[in-house]
Amino acid sequence: MKIEGNVSYHESINEMYKKVKSEEVTNIVDRFNLQEKTRCPYCTKGLSCQLCSMGPCRISDKNPHGACGIDAAGMVMRNFVHKNMLGTEAYTYHAVEAAKTLKATAEGKTPFEIKDVDKLKFFASKLGIEGGDVNEIAKKVADYVIADLSSVEQSKLVEIFAPDKRKELWKDLGIFPNGVFHEVLTVGSSSMTNVDSNYVSLAKKSMAMSIATCMSAQIALEFIQDILFGTPKPHESFADLGILDPDYVNIAVDGHEPFVGAALIKLAESEEIQNKAKEAGAKGLRIIGFIETGQELIQRFDSPVFAGIVGNWIVQEFALATGCVDVFAADMNCALPTIPEYQRYGVKIVPVSKLVRFRGIDEGLDYEPEKVEEIARKLIDMAIDNFKQRDKSKAVRIEKKQKIVVGFSPEAILEAVGEIEVLLDAIKSGAIKGIVALVSCTTLKNGPHDLNTVTIAKELIKRDILVLSLGCGNAALQVAGLTSMDAVSEAGENLKAVCEKLNIPPVLSFGTCTDTGRAAYLLRVVADALGVDIPQLPVAVTAPEYMEQKATIDAVFAVAYGLVTHVSPVPPVTGSADVVKLLTEDIEKVTGGKIVVEEDPVKAAEILEKEIVKKREALGI
Amino acid sequence: MKIEGNVSYHESINEMYKKVKSEEVTNIVDRFNLQEKTRCPYCTKGLSCQLCSMGPCRISDKNPHGACGIDAAGMVMRNFVHKNMLGTEAYTYHAVEAAKTLKATAEGKTPFEIKDVDKLKFFASKLGIEGGDVNEIAKKVADYVIADLSSVEQSKLVEIFAPDKRKELWKDLGIFPNGVFHEVLTVGSSSMTNVDSNYVSLAKKSMAMSIATCMSAQIALEFIQDILFGTPKPHESFADLGILDPDYVNIAVDGHEPFVGAALIKLAESEEIQNKAKEAGAKGLRIIGFIETGQELIQRFDSPVFAGIVGNWIVQEFALATGCVDVFAADMNCALPTIPEYQRYGVKIVPVSKLVRFRGIDEGLDYEPEKVEEIARKLIDMAIDNFKQRDKSKAVRIEKKQKIVVGFSPEAILEAVGEIEVLLDAIKSGAIKGIVALVSCTTLKNGPHDLNTVTIAKELIKRDILVLSLGCGNAALQVAGLTSMDAVSEAGENLKAVCEKLNIPPVLSFGTCTDTGRAAYLLRVVADALGVDIPQLPVAVTAPEYMEQKATIDAVFAVAYGLVTHVSPVPPVTGSADVVKLLTEDIEKVTGGKIVVEEDPVKAAEILEKEIVKKREALGI
Repeated sequence: MKIEGNVSYHESINEMYKKVKSEEVTNIVDRFNLQEKTRCPYCTKGLSCQLCSMGPCRISDKNPHGACGIDAAGMVMRNFVHKNMLGTEAYTYHAVEAAKTLKATAEGKTPFEIKDVDKLKFFASKLGIEGGDVNEIAKKVADYVIADLSSVEQSKLVEIFAPDKRKELWKDLGIFPNGVFHEVLTVGSSSMTNVDSNYVSLAKKSMAMSIATCMSAQIALEFIQDILFGTPKPHESFADLGILDPDYVNIAVDGHEPFVGAALIKLAESEEIQNKAKEAGAKGLRIIGFIETGQELIQRFDSPVFAGIVGNWIVQEFALATGCVDVFAADMNCALPTIPEYQRYGVKIVPVSKLVRFRGIDEGLDYEPEKVEEIARKLIDMAIDNFKQRDKSKAVRIEKKQKIVVGFSPEAILEAVGEIEVLLDAIKSGAIKGIVALVSCTTLKNGPHDLNTVTIAKELIKRDILVLSLGCGNAALQVAGLTSMDAVSEAGENLKAVCEKLNIPPVLSFGTCTDTGRAAYLLRVVADALGVDIPQLPVAVTAPEYMEQKATIDAVFAVAYGLVTHVSPVPPVTGSADVVKLLTEDIEKVTGGKIVVEEDPVKAAEILEKEIVKKREALGI
Repeated sequence: MKIEGNVSYHESINEMYKKVKSEEVTNIVDRFNLQEKTRCPYCTKGLSCQLCSMGPCRISDKNPHGACGIDAAGMVMRNFVHKNMLGTEAYTYHAVEAAKTLKATAEGKTPFEIKDVDKLKFFASKLGIEGGDVNEIAKKVADYVIADLSSVEQSKLVEIFAPDKRKELWKDLGIFPNGVFHEVLTVGSSSMTNVDSNYVSLAKKSMAMSIATCMSAQIALEFIQDILFGTPKPHESFADLGILDPDYVNIAVDGHEPFVGAALIKLAESEEIQNKAKEAGAKGLRIIGFIETGQELIQRFDSPVFAGIVGNWIVQEFALATGCVDVFAADMNCALPTIPEYQRYGVKIVPVSKLVRFRGIDEGLDYEPEKVEEIARKLIDMAIDNFKQRDKSKAVRIEKKQKIVVGFSPEAILEAVGEIEVLLDAIKSGAIKGIVALVSCTTLKNGPHDLNTVTIAKELIKRDILVLSLGCGNAALQVAGLTSMDAVSEAGENLKAVCEKLNIPPVLSFGTCTDTGRAAYLLRVVADALGVDIPQLPVAVTAPEYMEQKATIDAVFAVAYGLVTHVSPVPPVTGSADVVKLLTEDIEKVTGGKIVVEEDPVKAAEILEKEIVKKREALGI
């Protein structure tokens, strides 16, 4: 369906879309609408294969096999698995960078420090690493993590961080993973032409890979980022385009990795840099959070030079079109291929990861831990130079600036409730009916930008269901004001009382999509405290606007972990009734988790509530 | 184009196709023809993307961007890169299995032995491993290989095995690779939605990955297989369906890994097993080579119980339809999804790798080094049991059994010519005008099975160009008789004289697609002896019937290595003139290699001859 009328839930984006549209600049909404005219019905259902030279093949009722002989279920699942692999690779790349950064920091080669020593010691003790000074421990932790991710034997990190009952099940099913490296080799080799043509087997391999992804790569990388930059704690910040002030030198940090952004914040906090910006005629210099890099930073940094987060990936072009940004520093995903076009609005686009390149932009200041200070200095110099030339009179000032509360890490949540028993009692009493983790991207496929995400979150809190928000969906809810204390009034009566008592919003801003592993670990703590397995908990997951390949591997993991997982828009698996049945029904008997596909967010909230109530009844609460 | 009339160059396959067709059994030819009616023009050109939920998108003149903003070049290259990754993963999976097998063998846990001790010592010395007994060295070699493949730092194996001039170039270009693990993470993370939208950058990353693949994974694994099973030496064997005798217990080994096949041959050589087969009423028990597993074995094993090779992947269904095979043991690719249907011809399908599963076949006797003897015993018992029930009267006896010469490893070639100077002199004098490595699969896309492969090989040898044959294309040439001494008469006068003098065929049967790295190493030896860089050599590559994802990563490597590389059928890259120009023109100025796309095999041979002559002229020979 084409997007007509309002393109977004957020007024700021609607306003900027009108500007960009009137200036005839390429933008995500118009490109999406143009594609809506010509969707391929085969690709939409997962029934198109371009793997080999005997193809491309399409499966239909009249033609039930690809040339090789693959059937609909095999083709659909194989296509799906290929997406999952990319997500795994991206998370693991990030985890390797994090471990290298920790090691370089311990060796004194970065501007960073071991900020959360307790967390380092906790993590190290979990890994069986003890003794030595902080830097020694940090180096050993970094080596351990890289060795585990690279392993061709069983993953020790999964052994350490997964709940016992899950591990038992996964071993029974033959899906307890090796290191990510070996899982990627296995899934890649299996999903070539003429190898694994059994959709159930492919699904199981993908589950094993997802477990390695979330319980080793993700958990390790978030632990490390906490060690380096501090474990998130609740604090106030700001969201929406209103954080952009054209009178400042503004450096946008975009992507998923916090390293360059963290170095920038540290430098920008110095008087030297602020004075340099002022000498150039600016009111100062600010770091602006975009997408998940912004989210990683906003959870951990409470700094006067960090302005907050503009929003999620769909806002990227519109934020740049304000003409307020001097440098856009792009680390790994998500950076739209078209943003070089937005240099007409005065911004300079600079990749800060070797992963990121654009048409016409062949070079970058690519992140290496040892070079990050130099990179940050160069970006600041570029931005100040850029500021001098940027035409401030053409900038758009957006008024809306949403005050938000962020930083609800597991530790922070437990601290907020006092002790875990308080949380358990609230759940047992029904004051909190259940918990839904909203881990999502954002898309236009199921309607205007962020509308589905905001709607389902509102519907859930109205039903006394506490929401943890992660990923680009987190930014949707931040900008919409749902992670603010103002939103307490929108919660159901019981949840409202809990929020007021604990002074927390009804949507807890938890982190990025990368925090899926951390959320799983929080659930483990709750399940252990209750003495139950994950699928017994009155919890669920929703991805109301999933978009890309990190989302699909997270969803696969959620199902393997035993969670009912709502997904919208409909993923390209409908070409096979077998695959649909496997994911939405049969799998529940095996792992306790399943996929719920529902494009109407109100109905989706109803379904998740029912699932939660069912679980409460089974627990006798 | 539909395949009509003869479906194959080989009479045996035409005969079997008629049988299968008349019995209305699903088969590769009919499925291909049915798909030929409905090819998608977007997918054919690489202009369809199904990565994210904003899609599926199609690019056309009217609609030049995907919803995200990717352009034609970016989309085409990204799609291509995804295929390459699967090839890399499969080769690396194989390399890891080989290293694990070597280690387990050194620990006395397999029925194998360190057969080529000199090769082990040579390989170890290259790696800087010395001292200790043979088993100690073997363990260290295995650990070294796994550590290098898993590395997130620069690959030491590439440093050791690549020619100096190439290494220098690759470092200048920024494509000298890390370990395969890190290259896969880099390429996967880069080729997601919204990361690397620069087609040149994606191509460079793919080249780096291809270098890691061929110069670390492939070289290491072939070294290890030589160490375990002996370095190939010229000997006679047989090809075509005539090697199947219904009066024997026949165990087919299919895929790419020789491990289970090697264990089967060893066991089958025992009197005990042959007697057991005879007690069941058979004339004996034989191991039958299918596809690349067959090719790996045929190059190294000269055993009375190993019957030879039936052919390449397209013959799979037709070979099983003879009704002569008792057990079909499938390791990694290639095993057609439909072969469970062929159990109607009396064969039992058994996966022997966790990678391989079929619809309806959920379990396997999955290879682990420590279990291989037990697996082989079980397969033999299954096969003997099966023989008792198999209806021999329904079997088809194919008369044609082609005598072939195989086993031309680099060492064997150098031994055949006496010393390298003899080879160099033959090249310098023009007796051998040049060398073409034919590394190919087989496909129906550019005409009947194996027709293009056989035609181009004949055209090349007629032009005094020596052909090294690798991969499924090797089997095409074996069955066609071109790797036999009879074929000498088909060579040009100069080449004929060389062949007669050295007693070698004009097409040297070199190995599998996995031997691409080994072929590259042979070229290095020649280039070093001449004191030139790879692109200066009068050599080229042809993939006249490429099919799958191992082929695409091999082709990328060939270009990075500096080789002119002919490819047919046309790969799905024609949607971007930029990509086509990069691969067929611009890249030559950078690496010295390029892709030549030509569907007519005679014209392709002419082009390769011209390229070789150009290089001879530049060398002044």
